[in-house]
Amino acid sequence: MPVISNKANEMPASPIRKLVPYAEAAKKKGIKIYHLNIGQPDIVTPDTFLKAIKSADIKVLEYSHSAGNESYRKKLCNYYKGYNINIEPSEVIITNGGSEAISIAMMTCFNPGDEIIIPEPFYANYNGFSVAANVTVKPIKSSIESGFALPPISDFEKLITPKTKGIMICNPGNPTGYLYTKAELEALKDLVKKYDLFLLSDEVYREFCYDGKEYVSVMHLSGIENNVILLDSISKRYSACGARIGAMISKNKEVMSAALKFAQARLSPPSYGQIGAEAALDTPASYFAEVKKEYIARRDFIIDALNKIPGVFCPKPSGAFYCIARLPIDNADKFCQWLLEDFNFNQQTVMLAPATGFYSTPGSGINEVRLAYVLNLNDLNNAMICLKEALAKYPGKTN
Amino acid sequence: MPVISNKANEMPASPIRKLVPYAEAAKKKGIKIYHLNIGQPDIVTPDTFLKAIKSADIKVLEYSHSAGNESYRKKLCNYYKGYNINIEPSEVIITNGGSEAISIAMMTCFNPGDEIIIPEPFYANYNGFSVAANVTVKPIKSSIESGFALPPISDFEKLITPKTKGIMICNPGNPTGYLYTKAELEALKDLVKKYDLFLLSDEVYREFCYDGKEYVSVMHLSGIENNVILLDSISKRYSACGARIGAMISKNKEVMSAALKFAQARLSPPSYGQIGAEAALDTPASYFAEVKKEYIARRDFIIDALNKIPGVFCPKPSGAFYCIARLPIDNADKFCQWLLEDFNFNQQTVMLAPATGFYSTPGSGINEVRLAYVLNLNDLNNAMICLKEALAKYPGKTN
Repeated sequence: MPVISNKANEMPASPIRKLVPYAEAAKKKGIKIYHLNIGQPDIVTPDTFLKAIKSADIKVLEYSHSAGNESYRKKLCNYYKGYNINIEPSEVIITNGGSEAISIAMMTCFNPGDEIIIPEPFYANYNGFSVAANVTVKPIKSSIESGFALPPISDFEKLITPKTKGIMICNPGNPTGYLYTKAELEALKDLVKKYDLFLLSDEVYREFCYDGKEYVSVMHLSGIENNVILLDSISKRYSACGARIGAMISKNKEVMSAALKFAQARLSPPSYGQIGAEAALDTPASYFAEVKKEYIARRDFIIDALNKIPGVFCPKPSGAFYCIARLPIDNADKFCQWLLEDFNFNQQTVMLAPATGFYSTPGSGINEVRLAYVLNLNDLNNAMICLKEALAKYPGKTN
Repeated sequence: MPVISNKANEMPASPIRKLVPYAEAAKKKGIKIYHLNIGQPDIVTPDTFLKAIKSADIKVLEYSHSAGNESYRKKLCNYYKGYNINIEPSEVIITNGGSEAISIAMMTCFNPGDEIIIPEPFYANYNGFSVAANVTVKPIKSSIESGFALPPISDFEKLITPKTKGIMICNPGNPTGYLYTKAELEALKDLVKKYDLFLLSDEVYREFCYDGKEYVSVMHLSGIENNVILLDSISKRYSACGARIGAMISKNKEVMSAALKFAQARLSPPSYGQIGAEAALDTPASYFAEVKKEYIARRDFIIDALNKIPGVFCPKPSGAFYCIARLPIDNADKFCQWLLEDFNFNQQTVMLAPATGFYSTPGSGINEVRLAYVLNLNDLNNAMICLKEALAKYPGKTN
């Protein structure tokens, strides 16, 4: 039998997926599970998107342009103008979800063995894309006490070696919900300039910024236009995860010209998703206002409920729809499994994501979990009741 | 400005795309172009596919399973049974087009620096996926005189080194239209077994086999089940290139388990494409009979017309909808550009793909072009008239 590749062996399995068999077993026992473990919103996809697909008059479902339909890219540039991001259609490649934007950006920028610094905790799949591109992730720890603010620049500088080729951030953050301030981004800018690094920024949650706080994009940073790559997706914006439409954006012509060759090799992004995404650009502001109101209510509820549970600490996030909570437990992986395998409260339980999967440094996040507040308030309330009961009973409790 | 990666520099630009600016300029001059340069069929997508998407009742467009919807994978197994290919849903991963199936298979099987032997001429994007995966392509030349039959096994053995890790074929072939015989595949089987290599087979044109010739899949070869990976796509089968739905299939559990980790990192294949593809499995046999009849008529016409032009030789393909013709010209790249830039016949011309882009050995295919017979008979007739006139006038004519 031929031997599979080293990277196939090294590819991390998702820490959440390890729990799936336990969730399935619990369901078989008739236990209702509140899923706070994944970022699959329950929010309806806007009518603009769905209707455009129903009414599309297609006879031959052809390949689109490898960079995506020009009409969509043009209209998308208008969307970004609304966020004070000024780009041209030639500076955009439409991708198979944000995922492909990350993987094309990594292949375009980094050689095997190059290092990329990423504040942790970070979106677990960054690890997978890095392994696939043979890039080494150098994690830099942000702390729950600071709400996962940007680590001091001096900490970044300690990690910089001749192999350091880039920095990657997620803003607003998954899994932290942290929204970087202008001062933090300006500090990053100076660092990127000083060492001439690529700055990759995943900003798929920009619609979800709360409390009147300012969303600052890496595209707003002047003087590092050739260093910056914006990674985007419509999955969360329009609750259209299954569309698989994302974008890779940069003002660096050399980067975009190389990225287009990777895009051409895979021919084109999905046609239906592009049709929906283009039409969704006309979604009324009232849709987003409603969605934002809903997420704020959920966040306010869940953060309050979490911090009321003895021994729990959860900073209040300003963006996205995640939070990371520190629990009075010995081991988050064990606890999350125990919730599914050994616990129920009135035949109900809650599924959480152990934060260990979002850290690259071994041992980190051992007593932290990520919660995605993607359920309605009533379900969230039941989930919090379950969690409180569970923490009272869990054998590995630490206080 | 930070430096892009080596592989970004090495990524080949598509030889066809180099011609696009010339085609655009010709169009601006009011010249009608017959596009025989790309495999974008003009055949209508079946109603089964299009109607399923129109009538899909979606409220939240969610991620699907990373391996694709289970209902689709189950039904797809039935489709393969019709070709005497017996597989389970767990042996299938639905991908973003056949393209992603190739790239996941390469990342799963090959380490950077590993070598893969591919008979040339081959689908140009195999080069791109190989560069992206840091895999070295070792081309093995098949000859136009034999109609691009499998090169002798002894020629393969000459190329085998300790770094050789796999063989890749396309059957029926793009760009050759050649359909491998049972004897050829059995010979490949013995070779694969002898050196314990992976055998990747791109069989996206299986619906297009002509003259009653037998389609033999690598999945029919017994005794090398753990070596074989089938790469598939619905793009040509249902003329649904824009759906971006393909599949990677193998009985090798280790391969599929590793491949699933790559699939999980990118979350899921497109939901709409999967809905269409699942429904399209009920497309009546009459649709395929019609399509096949049409392609046979086109093939018969174009092969006959080509061979009637003085100095032209074109073997008759038994599958797919491509053929490679040898022309009495000095240089196919120059000729294809000249057709667009300097030639027209009654304000019409033809766009062809220089075969040089399908060869990896420098200098090969210099007097060959690929023609995709994806236009109706009337247009094909006009295209052949143009080509005949052009060959009579081309300054770089060799006979």
